[in-house]
Amino acid sequence: DLRPQENYFSSEMLDRLSEKRTDKVWLEVKQSDPDTVYLLFSGLSPMVGGSQEDQETRDETKLCRFRYEAVKDLILKPATVLIFLGVEKRKTASSSSQSGELGQEAPAWFAVSTDQDTAELLKRSREKNCFFPKTPNRDLLNLSEEEAGVVAQARSVLAWHSRYSFCPTCGSSTELQDGGYRRSCVNSDCRSLQGVHNTCYPRVDPVVIMLVIHPDGNQCLLGRKKIFPVGMFSCLAGFIEPGETIEHAVRREVEEESGVKVGPVQYVSCQPWPMPSNLMIGCFAVAISTDIRADEKEIEEARWFPRQQVIDSVFGGVRTGLTVPPRQTIAHQLIRHWIGVNSNL
Amino acid sequence: DLRPQENYFSSEMLDRLSEKRTDKVWLEVKQSDPDTVYLLFSGLSPMVGGSQEDQETRDETKLCRFRYEAVKDLILKPATVLIFLGVEKRKTASSSSQSGELGQEAPAWFAVSTDQDTAELLKRSREKNCFFPKTPNRDLLNLSEEEAGVVAQARSVLAWHSRYSFCPTCGSSTELQDGGYRRSCVNSDCRSLQGVHNTCYPRVDPVVIMLVIHPDGNQCLLGRKKIFPVGMFSCLAGFIEPGETIEHAVRREVEEESGVKVGPVQYVSCQPWPMPSNLMIGCFAVAISTDIRADEKEIEEARWFPRQQVIDSVFGGVRTGLTVPPRQTIAHQLIRHWIGVNSNL
Ligand SMILES: Nc1ncnc2c1ncn2[C@@H]1O[C@H](COP(=O)(O)O)[C@@H](O)[C@H]1O
Ligand SMILES: Nc1ncnc2c1ncn2[C@@H]1O[C@H](COP(=O)(O)O)[C@@H](O)[C@H]1O
Ligand SMILES: [Mg+2]
Ligand SMILES: [Mg+2]
Ligand SMILES: [Mg+2]
Ligand SMILES: [Mg+2]
Ligand SMILES: [Mg+2]
Ligand SMILES: [Mg+2]
Ligand SMILES: [Zn+2]
Ligand SMILES: [Zn+2]
Repeated sequence: DLRPQENYFSSEMLDRLSEKRTDKVWLEVKQSDPDTVYLLFSGLSPMVGGSQEDQETRDETKLCRFRYEAVKDLILKPATVLIFLGVEKRKTASSSSQSGELGQEAPAWFAVSTDQDTAELLKRSREKNCFFPKTPNRDLLNLSEEEAGVVAQARSVLAWHSRYSFCPTCGSSTELQDGGYRRSCVNSDCRSLQGVHNTCYPRVDPVVIMLVIHPDGNQCLLGRKKIFPVGMFSCLAGFIEPGETIEHAVRREVEEESGVKVGPVQYVSCQPWPMPSNLMIGCFAVAISTDIRADEKEIEEARWFPRQQVIDSVFGGVRTGLTVPPRQTIAHQLIRHWIGVNSNL
Repeated sequence: DLRPQENYFSSEMLDRLSEKRTDKVWLEVKQSDPDTVYLLFSGLSPMVGGSQEDQETRDETKLCRFRYEAVKDLILKPATVLIFLGVEKRKTASSSSQSGELGQEAPAWFAVSTDQDTAELLKRSREKNCFFPKTPNRDLLNLSEEEAGVVAQARSVLAWHSRYSFCPTCGSSTELQDGGYRRSCVNSDCRSLQGVHNTCYPRVDPVVIMLVIHPDGNQCLLGRKKIFPVGMFSCLAGFIEPGETIEHAVRREVEEESGVKVGPVQYVSCQPWPMPSNLMIGCFAVAISTDIRADEKEIEEARWFPRQQVIDSVFGGVRTGLTVPPRQTIAHQLIRHWIGVNSNL
């Protein structure tokens, strides 16, 4: 029942059951439950299946799913990070998010991250054809919609643990709590232990990403960074700053990066982007000026593209000198949405 | 030219000129410029003017604005945090965000935070009638729209510095850079110095806040926390989690806090909330179930309120047993917007 307009990384096949995160007994029972699914991460890459040789031809990457028996030694090691991801959503009409009154509980999912030697991990896995992708960023975009949603959650939380293992308030070590959704300072005098502070919780960085539409309605503004492949242009984007609204951030970033001034801003949709933990907030933005002065530091070139060139490029076949990012990106979806709503396609 | 639908804390009277943050020479020239405006903060409260005794009767709190001469000793002290906020936007039609070609530059604004003794600070200020509010949260809601926007920016950034002075990646000290928009680890071996990492940048926490509308269209769901004044109910709200969209966070938080299931979600507007650095993303959410089971931990009570009771409460005069939050909150604006769009008021 994934709605077609949903962005990649946005599917939620699990119910997070956040109230269970503090229930140590429940979590321990779930951990050793034979139905429980474990995903293995190394260096923030998930272990995936299929043979490594097929990589070019495979159209979908699949996560390797492990059972308790395969990971039980690993999760006891002190360097291992274990995250409770949730339980599978029931597909029945009367689906309750809670564990059923039927006595039969939905399988729980955990993510396990480890700095153990990967060869060693592969031996443990006892499954053939499992590997850690060599080009993780590409492989992360080739999962099924459902698995992509799980990876978005798991990878963001794991990235937070890998970067925030010390208390930013006092510099002491911290320890993982609440099924992986909290880190608490081990220094009992620390200010972070009085009251509720965001230092204890995973970070999510809101980013605006916008398709800027020419005042004539028939061109859109796309830019390229130096690191982009030749010919690729995408939507402008930038981090929302403290004390800023979504709409102001859109206007500021567009003006900073392209010199173009923006009037009306309209929210379209958003996408979690787990590299490491951004929330991409996608908007349309109507330009009220057209002169471009690209910010050399961030943007190599920004340009107005006519609608027809964008259509030809998105629907392929035609050599237009323009490549847009792949369908899994919200930039692609914003561009496609603009083509759809404003033309007779 | 503040549009009426703008939320409190959302006004942007300054151009942030983020490209100047790395320009040390420019920043130093601005610091000693006699036109430059300084705001003084202590314990994250801004110094405000007017006499303390009036506090009950005053309808607007005003920030105390200082000149370089008054703060020049203070900003040299090592414990002082200095943030470049931006320059005043030009109000002319051909307003350029850059410093004018006219040679005349717009005044710059800085925020100064210090742990110095407040009595000492007041002596320095040399202005009578300046004080640090005793009830900062209330006073922060009584600023002009323009000053509220500046405080949203300044307070969020200062709160970050006060909580994130150690490197979360290695536990070392960090030092302030880029006009206050960056902290960098002093440990030259730290992983945070390789590549770009969010540990170096101010944190903004996205939060969803939603008015849940009954399937009959004529009631809305409001809840109260134990700490609320008697009779006050507000919109449900919660932090967006890693790997989640705005729409999923709305559905999850509403179900967690009230047991009500939500279908369509529509973004309305957002509000920076600088306690300490949230971005409140305001939505309408249409319920697809109506039974309430309030989460005892967070919500004392949640209830469906009929439209007429909400109208009577918002437009006052009538004792309805319901109080909604003040106009400065996005919760208030969401409620008011719902009344406006769906009725014949
Ligand atoms: N949370 C953050 N994570 C990473 N980079 C950030 C963050 N906040 C600000 N930045 C800076 O923003 C730059 C990218 O620019 P933009 O995405 O246009 O805002 C990065 O190179 C960083 O210098
Ligand atoms: N960034 C954050 N800042 C403060 N509290 C958080 C944060 N993220 C999660 N929480 C937790 O969320 C609770 C508030 O619930 P809610 O606002 O409904 O998500 C707090 O009491 C914290 O336990
Ligand atoms: Mg950018
Ligand atoms: Mg930026
Ligand atoms: Mg930028
Ligand atoms: Mg809440
Ligand atoms: Mg929550
Ligand atoms: Mg909640
Ligand atoms: Zn600490
Ligand atoms: Zn460090």
